[in-house]
Amino acid sequence: MSNINITLPDGSVKEYPKGSTALDIARSISEGLARNVLSAKVNGKVWDATRTIEDDATLTLLTWNDEEGKSTMWHSSAHLMAEALESFYPGIKLAIGPPIENGFYYDIDFMEHSFSEEDLPKVEKKMLELAREKNEFIRKEVSKADALSFYKERNDPYKLEMINDLEDGEITFYTQGGFTDLCRGPHIPTTGYIKAVKLLSVAGAYWRGDEKNPMLTRIYGVTFPKQKELEEYLEMLEEAKKRDHRKLGKELELFTFDDDVGPGLPLWLPKGAFLIEQLEELAKKTERKAGYQRVKSPHIAKEQLYLTSGHLPYYKESMFPPMELDGGTYYLKAMNCPHHHKIFDALPKSYKDLPYRLAEYGTCYRYEKSGELFGLMRVRSLQMNDAHIYCTKAQFEDEFKAVNDMYLKYFRIFGIDKYVMRFSTHDPARLGKKYVDRPELWKETEDMVRRVLIDSGIPYKEVADEAAFYGPKIDVQVYSAIGKEFTLATNQVDFAQPLSFNLTFTNASNEQEHPIVIHRAPLGTHERFIGFLIEHYAGKFPLWLTPEQVRILPISEKFNEGCKNILQSLENYDIRASIDDRGEKVGKKIRDAELAKVPIMLIIGEKELEEGKVSVRKQGEGDQGTMDVTEFAKFIENEVKQQLEV
Amino acid sequence: MSNINITLPDGSVKEYPKGSTALDIARSISEGLARNVLSAKVNGKVWDATRTIEDDATLTLLTWNDEEGKSTMWHSSAHLMAEALESFYPGIKLAIGPPIENGFYYDIDFMEHSFSEEDLPKVEKKMLELAREKNEFIRKEVSKADALSFYKERNDPYKLEMINDLEDGEITFYTQGGFTDLCRGPHIPTTGYIKAVKLLSVAGAYWRGDEKNPMLTRIYGVTFPKQKELEEYLEMLEEAKKRDHRKLGKELELFTFDDDVGPGLPLWLPKGAFLIEQLEELAKKTERKAGYQRVKSPHIAKEQLYLTSGHLPYYKESMFPPMELDGGTYYLKAMNCPHHHKIFDALPKSYKDLPYRLAEYGTCYRYEKSGELFGLMRVRSLQMNDAHIYCTKAQFEDEFKAVNDMYLKYFRIFGIDKYVMRFSTHDPARLGKKYVDRPELWKETEDMVRRVLIDSGIPYKEVADEAAFYGPKIDVQVYSAIGKEFTLATNQVDFAQPLSFNLTFTNASNEQEHPIVIHRAPLGTHERFIGFLIEHYAGKFPLWLTPEQVRILPISEKFNEGCKNILQSLENYDIRASIDDRGEKVGKKIRDAELAKVPIMLIIGEKELEEGKVSVRKQGEGDQGTMDVTEFAKFIENEVKQQLEV
Repeated sequence: MSNINITLPDGSVKEYPKGSTALDIARSISEGLARNVLSAKVNGKVWDATRTIEDDATLTLLTWNDEEGKSTMWHSSAHLMAEALESFYPGIKLAIGPPIENGFYYDIDFMEHSFSEEDLPKVEKKMLELAREKNEFIRKEVSKADALSFYKERNDPYKLEMINDLEDGEITFYTQGGFTDLCRGPHIPTTGYIKAVKLLSVAGAYWRGDEKNPMLTRIYGVTFPKQKELEEYLEMLEEAKKRDHRKLGKELELFTFDDDVGPGLPLWLPKGAFLIEQLEELAKKTERKAGYQRVKSPHIAKEQLYLTSGHLPYYKESMFPPMELDGGTYYLKAMNCPHHHKIFDALPKSYKDLPYRLAEYGTCYRYEKSGELFGLMRVRSLQMNDAHIYCTKAQFEDEFKAVNDMYLKYFRIFGIDKYVMRFSTHDPARLGKKYVDRPELWKETEDMVRRVLIDSGIPYKEVADEAAFYGPKIDVQVYSAIGKEFTLATNQVDFAQPLSFNLTFTNASNEQEHPIVIHRAPLGTHERFIGFLIEHYAGKFPLWLTPEQVRILPISEKFNEGCKNILQSLENYDIRASIDDRGEKVGKKIRDAELAKVPIMLIIGEKELEEGKVSVRKQGEGDQGTMDVTEFAKFIENEVKQQLEV
Repeated sequence: MSNINITLPDGSVKEYPKGSTALDIARSISEGLARNVLSAKVNGKVWDATRTIEDDATLTLLTWNDEEGKSTMWHSSAHLMAEALESFYPGIKLAIGPPIENGFYYDIDFMEHSFSEEDLPKVEKKMLELAREKNEFIRKEVSKADALSFYKERNDPYKLEMINDLEDGEITFYTQGGFTDLCRGPHIPTTGYIKAVKLLSVAGAYWRGDEKNPMLTRIYGVTFPKQKELEEYLEMLEEAKKRDHRKLGKELELFTFDDDVGPGLPLWLPKGAFLIEQLEELAKKTERKAGYQRVKSPHIAKEQLYLTSGHLPYYKESMFPPMELDGGTYYLKAMNCPHHHKIFDALPKSYKDLPYRLAEYGTCYRYEKSGELFGLMRVRSLQMNDAHIYCTKAQFEDEFKAVNDMYLKYFRIFGIDKYVMRFSTHDPARLGKKYVDRPELWKETEDMVRRVLIDSGIPYKEVADEAAFYGPKIDVQVYSAIGKEFTLATNQVDFAQPLSFNLTFTNASNEQEHPIVIHRAPLGTHERFIGFLIEHYAGKFPLWLTPEQVRILPISEKFNEGCKNILQSLENYDIRASIDDRGEKVGKKIRDAELAKVPIMLIIGEKELEEGKVSVRKQGEGDQGTMDVTEFAKFIENEVKQQLEV
C-alpha cells in the first residue's frame, strides 16, 4: 500500500496511507480534535470526513467553528429530521432539505397526514433518540437508473424530478440508520454529533418556489453540538425579537410606512430623521478630513446614461420602470456612480487633481419584489453613504487602505467588534460573460486588494466568482451586539466604467490615461444601517447619536417653571433636552423616560433649584449624584467626545 | 352742472365737476404732479388720465413709480413704435403690441418688406420725433361693424380675427397723430411723456403662439420718461450680462448640465454643492431655533396620494409621467406637502403638539417644457427649502408672523434691500371652481394674513384672484443688487388639504379639529436661489458662504513648504483655504485669485515666514496689512459672525 502526501493549512506536509480519511488524519493528530471534526476541505472542496483520500491533497479539517462545518452538521440534521418524520408519518414525500444561514429546513409533502407546530416536540424528541444511536452517514454512488427505480418504488415525484435533471455518474445517496436520501453530501460522520435540537417553525412553500406547483410543508430547525449552545441561541433569538427594528422603530417613533406612499418607501419621522442627520454629519466630517468633496446629482437620468454604464439592460429588473418624456426615456437612479462619472468628466482633469474623491448621500431607487420587502432591511428607496474615488494605479493601494481604515474607524465608533470582509474575485472561466474581459486588470487589482487586506491584518474571506462585473469587491459583514449578522456595505474596485465612460486624466507625461475608480459606502444606506443600529443598540442609542439626550423631570408641577431655565441653559450648550411637565409622579416619569430610552434624566426638585444643581440619573444605571449645570454640560460634552474620538 | 365726490388714497374726499378727468384733478393738486401722471386707477380699474369721470369714484393717480403707470407708458410706446414703423413700411399688418415686464413688443407682419436689427436705430429716431410732437392719445368707442370695416379696408387679417372675438359695445380704438389702433387702452395723455427710447431686439413669433400660424416679426423695446433712466437701465443690462448665472456658474465651476442626464437637471460640482451645504446649514440652524423638526420623505409616491391632495388631475401636466409598478401607479413628487401630511398623520396629535413644524430640503420634480428651461432659473429638479406648519387658528397669526420674520432675517443676511410681498387672494365669483368653496374660511384667513402684513409694516401688494386653490398665498419678489427682479419664494395658507387628508388633532375640549397648514419656503429652491445669488453677488460670495475663503499665494516656489504649515493652521480653525503652489509670478496668482473671486489672499514670502505672519489682501480692496495666524483666524471668524448675525 502506497502513501500520499497531505498538506495541512499551516503548510506542513505529512505522509499518510493512501485511502486514509480526514477523520483518520485528525485522530493521528489528537483524539480530541477528531471528536470535533464535522467534515473536511479536500483540495478546496468540502467532503465527508469519512471519505477516503486516494491522492496527494491539501486538507483543512472543519469543525463547528467553521462556517462549512456548521453547514455540514445542519445538512445532516435535515436528514435526521426526515428520518424522524418518516417514523411518524410513513409514505410522506420528501422534496429538498438544505442547510441555511442559521439551521436547516426540509420541504415535505405530508400526503394524507396533517402536521402543525404542535407536532414539533415529538419530532425533536425522536431526533435526539436517533442521534444517540450514533448512526453513521454512509455515502453511496448510484446509477441514474437505480436512483430512479428507488424513488419510483417509493412513488416520490419530487426526487424523481430532481434525478431526471442530474447526469448519470454524479448521483449519490446517503444513508443513516434506516433512512436513505438522494444527496450530494457531505455529511457528518455519525448522528451522534448532534446533541441539541430545536425545531423552530412550520411554513408553507411551493415546490421549486413556483406558485403553480403544489404547496409543501416547510419545517425549520437548528441543531448544536452542545445543549448550552442551543440555550444561548434561543436567548439570542428572544433578545433579537425584543430588538426587532420594526417594533422599536414604531415604539421610538423613528419611521413609518404608508399605503398611499407605497411599500418599501419609509417616511422618516422627526426622531428618525434626526438619526439620519447625525449620521450624515459624522460622514461629512469624516469624509471632509479624508479629502472628499461633496457633490449633488438628480435622482433621474436619461436611458443613455445607464446604457453607457451597463446598468441597462443588465440591471434593468432591479430598476424602477421608465418614464417617457419629450420623446426620451428617463429612469430613477439605482446607483449614483454614473452621475458621479459625469461630474468627474465635466471639467478636464490632470494627474495633479487625483485622487479625486466625490461623496454624496444620494438616494437611489431599486425595485425589490413586494414579498421581499422587510422593514428597513429590504426597501425600495436607499439613501446611500456613497463616494467614488478616481485615482491612478500608483495611488490605488493607499486609497484602498484609507477606505478600509475608514470602515474600521466607523466600527470602533459604533462598537462593532466582530466583522468579516468578504473579498469576491472573478472566475477566469467567465471572462467576457459575467466579467469584463480584461484578465491582466483583474489580476492586478485583485492582487492589490489582497495585499492591502493582508497588510492591514483585516479578517477576510476570499470567495471566487462573486465579483462585480467591473471589478473585485469586498462585502462587509458585521455582527450586532447579540451576534446577529448583517451585510452592511460594499467596497468595489472598478476599472471598467472609466473605459465605458471614457473618463481620462492627463498624466505627468502629458498623455491621456484612464483612472481606476473605487466605489465605497462604509455606512451603507441609512435604511439598513439605522435598522442595524436599532437592533445593535436595542434602541438605546449612544449620547452623540440619540435625538433626546436629556429629559428633565420636575418632581412636581410647581417646579416646571424653574426647569425651563435649566432647559434654556442646556440648549445654549447645544444639548438636546426636553421637560416632562406632565402632572405625573416622578416615578412614572422615570419609567417613561427609561422606556423612551433617554440616556440621561435630571430629577429636579426644590433643593436642586435652590442650589442651582441638577440630580443626574443615567438610563439603566441609576443615580449619578448632583452637579451644577456647567459641570453637567462638560460631562455630556466629554461623553460625546469619547464616543466619537475612538 | 353737478359735482362728483372723488375719494383719494389717503381717504380724503374732494368735490369736482362731473366730467373731470384724472389729469384735471392732478392739476388741481399741483402742476408738477400733473406732469407725471401717466394713467389713473378709477374705482380699482386702470383708466386713461384724460378720460372723464361721471360719477363719485375712488381715484389713485399713477406715475412712473407705479407698476401700472409704467405699464401704461410702455403700452403707449408700442403704439408709438407702430406709428413709426408704418411711416417706413406702409401696408404692414399689425397683430398685438402689449406692455411686458420690462418694456413692450409688437408682433408685425412686414409683408413684402424685410426688417432686421440694423433697422432699429432709424425707428428709434422716428419715435423720438413723433414723441416731440406731443400727440394726444384719443380714445373712441366704435361699433363692431365699423371696426371690421376699418380693418377690412386696411386688409389686416390679425385685427379682423381679434375683432371677431370681441363683443359689440366693448370695442375701442386709440389714435395718436396719424396712427389708429384697435386697443382696450389705457394710454398716457400724449406721446410727449416718452423722452427716451431703446429698441432691444428682433425675434420671430407665431401668430397666437401657434406654430401652424404664420411667423411674425416681434420687436422688443423699452422707453423712459428721462434719458438718464434709460442710461441706467442699459448699464444694468450690461451688468446683468456680466453677472449671468449661467456664465458665472461655468467659470466658477458651480454646476453643469449633461445631455445623457437630461435637460433641466443640474449636476452640482463640488463648489456648487458646497453652496448648497452652506445654505442648508443656515436653514437648519435657523429652523431648529424656530422650533422646526426635520423629516425625510421619499421622492415618489403612489397615485392615491396625489388624488387625495388634488394634485391629480389638476396639476398633472406639471408632473413627471407615471411609472407602472406591481399593478400600481407611481409618480415623482412635485410637492413635499402630501408626504408631510402623512408624517403629521402617522401619530395621533393633541393641541399640546401644535404648532407642529416639519421641515425638509425635499427634492421635487416638475415638468417644464424644454423650451422654457433656463439655466438654474427654470429647471426640472427642485431642491426646496420646504416646511409645513400645522397650527390652530389661535396660533395662526403668531406663526405666520414668525415665518415673515424669518424671510426678513434671510433678506438681511443676503443683503436683499428691496422686496415686495405679493398677497394673492381669491375671487368670490370663482368659489367651487378655481377655489375651495369655503367662503368663511377664505375671509378669515385672508383677514389674518392682511393683518400680519400691515402689523409687520412689510411692503405688500394685494392681487385678487391669484390665490392657490387651497388658500391665500404670498409670493415674495426680491430685487438683486442691480435691481433685477426675481420671484423667489412663496408662503401659503392652506385650510383645504387638512380636510382632504382628514388631518386632525384633539383640542382642549377633547374634540377632533382640523389644523391650518402654512406652506413656506423662504429660501425657495437651491436652483433658483443660487441662480439669484450668483447674479446678486456677481459671483463674489460673502465669506461665510464661499467655498474657498482664503488662497495662500507663496511669492516663490521655495516658500510652498512653509505655506503648508499656514494652511494646516487655518484648517484647524475651520477656515477653507488652499495654496496656489504653481511656479507662476505672484502677480499672476493674484489676478487668478481675483478672477476666481476668492475673498481673501495671503501673500507669503521670506519675511512673513520668518516673522510667523501673513500679509492679507482683500479681493477688490487690496492690501490689509500683516497679522499673525491667530489674529487672522479671529478676523475671519468675526467677519463671518457679522455676516450671519444681522
